[in-house]
Amino acid sequence: MKATDIFQAVKSSFSSQMPSPKIYLDNNATTPLDDRVKTAISDALDLWANPSSNNENALKAAKAILESRNHLAEMFNVKKEDVVFTSGGTESNNWVIEGAIRSARKNGKKPHVVTTNIEHPSILNPLQRRENDGEISVTYVSVNPSTGFVTPASVLQAVTSDTCLVTVMLANNETGVLQPVSEICRMIRNKFKENSPFLHSDVAQAAGKIPVDVKSLGVDAVTVVGHKFYGPRNGALIYNSKSARLPPMLLGGNQESGLRSGTENTPMIVGLGEAARIYNEASSNIESVLTQNRDYFEELLVKRLRNSHLIHFLGSPRLSNTSSVAFLDYPSHGCDLLEKCQTFSASTGAACHKNECSPILKACGISFALASKTVRISFGRSTKLAEIETVVDELVELCSSENK
Amino acid sequence: MKATDIFQAVKSSFSSQMPSPKIYLDNNATTPLDDRVKTAISDALDLWANPSSNNENALKAAKAILESRNHLAEMFNVKKEDVVFTSGGTESNNWVIEGAIRSARKNGKKPHVVTTNIEHPSILNPLQRRENDGEISVTYVSVNPSTGFVTPASVLQAVTSDTCLVTVMLANNETGVLQPVSEICRMIRNKFKENSPFLHSDVAQAAGKIPVDVKSLGVDAVTVVGHKFYGPRNGALIYNSKSARLPPMLLGGNQESGLRSGTENTPMIVGLGEAARIYNEASSNIESVLTQNRDYFEELLVKRLRNSHLIHFLGSPRLSNTSSVAFLDYPSHGCDLLEKCQTFSASTGAACHKNECSPILKACGISFALASKTVRISFGRSTKLAEIETVVDELVELCSSENK
Ligand SMILES: Cc1ncc(COP(=O)(O)O)c(C=O)c1O
Ligand SMILES: Cc1ncc(COP(=O)(O)O)c(C=O)c1O
Repeated sequence: MKATDIFQAVKSSFSSQMPSPKIYLDNNATTPLDDRVKTAISDALDLWANPSSNNENALKAAKAILESRNHLAEMFNVKKEDVVFTSGGTESNNWVIEGAIRSARKNGKKPHVVTTNIEHPSILNPLQRRENDGEISVTYVSVNPSTGFVTPASVLQAVTSDTCLVTVMLANNETGVLQPVSEICRMIRNKFKENSPFLHSDVAQAAGKIPVDVKSLGVDAVTVVGHKFYGPRNGALIYNSKSARLPPMLLGGNQESGLRSGTENTPMIVGLGEAARIYNEASSNIESVLTQNRDYFEELLVKRLRNSHLIHFLGSPRLSNTSSVAFLDYPSHGCDLLEKCQTFSASTGAACHKNECSPILKACGISFALASKTVRISFGRSTKLAEIETVVDELVELCSSENK
Repeated sequence: MKATDIFQAVKSSFSSQMPSPKIYLDNNATTPLDDRVKTAISDALDLWANPSSNNENALKAAKAILESRNHLAEMFNVKKEDVVFTSGGTESNNWVIEGAIRSARKNGKKPHVVTTNIEHPSILNPLQRRENDGEISVTYVSVNPSTGFVTPASVLQAVTSDTCLVTVMLANNETGVLQPVSEICRMIRNKFKENSPFLHSDVAQAAGKIPVDVKSLGVDAVTVVGHKFYGPRNGALIYNSKSARLPPMLLGGNQESGLRSGTENTPMIVGLGEAARIYNEASSNIESVLTQNRDYFEELLVKRLRNSHLIHFLGSPRLSNTSSVAFLDYPSHGCDLLEKCQTFSASTGAACHKNECSPILKACGISFALASKTVRISFGRSTKLAEIETVVDELVELCSSENK
């Protein structure tokens, strides 16, 4: 073995033992737990009593849950009675679909649902199964390919008197584009008045990044997930104070006022409440940090990569932390690009196969050629400007060296 | 104020500030977290990465989940692929019902379900709703009032060629009586062969107290809940290796091999795995401690309360830790008795109203007079014999002093 090979082997074994931690730019997939959330959960492991029992420890657990409920109520501008804890966003979304359809079936007609073509799979998949089974009909309103959002008029047009549910996400997880949810609700309520369908928005990606006010959105309920804003994996379905409740999906011991049975997961609920409290305390700060990171990244790309990159839907209202970028001169798939990156981790919307690209980007009207070269960079509350420079350096390096 | 009153006031204010912790005899409602489970959960809060992501931390989280899966597979004598993590027992039970019915609807006939009249509300309530909505028909097989369990023949008799699901709990949460699940499965499979309905057992109360071997039970799946055996609130649906899977209830990102979508709750799953590991390590010891506690308690009652108490279904096979006792000479409701108890906490099956008693005890054929005087004592792994003496002393005291 040559000395340089030995050096190389030693170096690589050393670096595989002690990899320098990568800069984490995949905060839309999941965020780290805030240290205060970690502490809150660890402490709440002592609140193991069954909150429905009749003993002193049970009261303490019930009180901790109530406090969490209050933090979430404040975060979404609703009353504490409007907060229903669930195991996560997937459960909340499936519940909304099952509940709205169950209510509608009573009317005898085949229920109809209106949604968009860029929802999370926890909306699209349950709808598609029921559609395939002939239970319901669904209209998937397409986003405008030049803006990445649905126009309120196109959603309104899809709603009929058989529509039992309209569900439109507030911020798309891949492009970050904000959907005009409040305008959609206003138009539907104007037209259908007290016969309006149930209006739902999956705000999983928006919550904790931009303000989400359930009342001013005008929806009946929103889906919330803790692990997108420095909380744990559980979540909630949060109702508008004025709205009628959906029938429960999970029946049993009548916890959560009968809306969601199952012995309460106290430590997780406490962690979710702490994540809400932290956001409530610093919301405007959080948003400006995220925006600053994202904007600095995009400025640097413009300076350094010029026309060889494209930021999707740059002109649309977007989530403060998300940048969906196609690296035009990179000769291969975005996934391949990410695998080469040593300084940071991020994600693409799809598995790394030459003949696949993100279904969401495709649904946004982005060509296969562009979509397959796209990477989603999602910044976090603690991303540093210097880190962004490191990341851009590497991206520039990879995009040009590959080109030679 | 008299000196003795002052003394009394001081004493009671002191004791309300520093209450000596009550002996906890409500382990069927929920158990404390084992300290090792607490540590495992706290440590796993660092595994916040999304297990489906493509980075080093994601791999660590996925590995921890795999380890948990292995511990549960060992506990229930199945393969790791047979373990599907859920948010808890309520979700698992609702899933079984929804899944079995969804599969059966494809056949065009109205699905029929067979269950018992003593199941947990997370079985009975979803069935009743669907029955009321005309979706399904249900046969609730009654337990034999002299034994507290259903006879296999009566269950078999209820099964028809339209039956899509038979669900019978392994151990009742209130009486502790074991149901003859393996015999039921054997008889149904003998008669219906490959046309047998889906066979399910809610083993929430049995797991962690007595051995539960999915293969020898002969069921297709069991419901498991962590917080009944010193683990966290989440749970699992555990399949028999040979059995076909039910269609998923929650659809979305295809986690858990597509059977249960939703980003994995890593710390909770790790905690559940640790609880299983602890049980696997010491199962026979655990069972003998529980039985010893229960037997000592019942012996003391016989010695001290003689004919003025009645232990329900004393002659039936029962859960090792559960004693369901009617205090015959106590002039009021069991709930009232428990409120007076200073040394321990336990529970009754129902709210403390003079005109209510536990629906489960009623379903077991126990008269209102007896049921309303019944208390469920459920021992834990760390209950001490001396504590049991204290508890019996107080029970004897309360039952006799009230009588004067
Ligand atoms: C927009 C959106 N909705 C719902 C979810 C589902 O969240 P979970 O997988 O935690 O249930 C996610 C997270 O992936 C999401 O991005
Ligand atoms: C027999 C049985 N099944 C199911 C459950 C439901 O468990 P959970 O409330 O944790 O979802 C319980 C616990 O109360 C139970 O005793």
